[in-house]
Amino acid sequence: MNFKDYIREVPDFPSKGIVFKDITPLLEDPAAFREAGMALLAFTEGLAINKVVGIESRGFFFAPLLAEHLQAGFIPARKPGKLPRRTSSMEYELEYGTDSLEIHAESISPGDRVLIHDDVLATGGTARAMCDLVESLGGEVVQVNFLIELGFLKGREKLEGFALRSLITY
Amino acid sequence: MNFKDYIREVPDFPSKGIVFKDITPLLEDPAAFREAGMALLAFTEGLAINKVVGIESRGFFFAPLLAEHLQAGFIPARKPGKLPRRTSSMEYELEYGTDSLEIHAESISPGDRVLIHDDVLATGGTARAMCDLVESLGGEVVQVNFLIELGFLKGREKLEGFALRSLITY
Repeated sequence: MNFKDYIREVPDFPSKGIVFKDITPLLEDPAAFREAGMALLAFTEGLAINKVVGIESRGFFFAPLLAEHLQAGFIPARKPGKLPRRTSSMEYELEYGTDSLEIHAESISPGDRVLIHDDVLATGGTARAMCDLVESLGGEVVQVNFLIELGFLKGREKLEGFALRSLITY
Repeated sequence: MNFKDYIREVPDFPSKGIVFKDITPLLEDPAAFREAGMALLAFTEGLAINKVVGIESRGFFFAPLLAEHLQAGFIPARKPGKLPRRTSSMEYELEYGTDSLEIHAESISPGDRVLIHDDVLATGGTARAMCDLVESLGGEVVQVNFLIELGFLKGREKLEGFALRSLITY
């Protein structure tokens, strides 16, 4: 299956000059959705993952599914203010300013073998912040995987030292 | 399994007087997460669902998983401005003001048999808007299901005429 057949490129979204990769056609096609999920799952074989972190919001499309198949716990990494209990957070840089992601502090324990998943690897700032956050809580990031990698943005460099897999590369 | 053992009640979140139902302990426990997913799936038996709509963001924790098991397409219903192509949207009332949800207009076709899923049924405004949106595009809402129903908020009344199932009721 050529997964790119199910990704629609939308020019000038969300702003001029950006070609947005719209993954909704892939999500809407049962066979493509399932096969993409199984391919992401295959990346994790033998890694003995016990926690899967999905990054809000589009990371939630596949991360819970990966967690279920791995019989791992699912941990949503959320924008500030969404999680009700004591959180740990990590800032990352945007083109202008900064943003941050949070998880409940008690969600990761020393010894946890953690998969981090997001839909798109762009500049890598978000994923790197998440890796640092998991490690700061004592977890081991055994893989970071993505549905799509935008190779030309060199996000891979920001994740040096982490095992990185992506299903579709542009 | 008593699913309520995996829901933590957090008083005064997000604002004073509200007791927030925190589902993250359930998500983080592999057995509870899987069993909750399978119980939601069991609600849909025999309904010949071909599209599953999940409502941003917490509806995304289970909706893709349900779609995968049902071999149905997954359609994310998102806050305004997140979807890149032509959308259909429906407003709903909040305590103060209104908000709206969007799906790509071409995601639902006449004849589609649609499951709508969200994590919590509160006042029912969001879910009802989603039902109306799906029907306005010619889809049939064959079930609306929820992980949690806050019975005391009477959201069920706003969904009269739709088949409604919820896993955990308060």
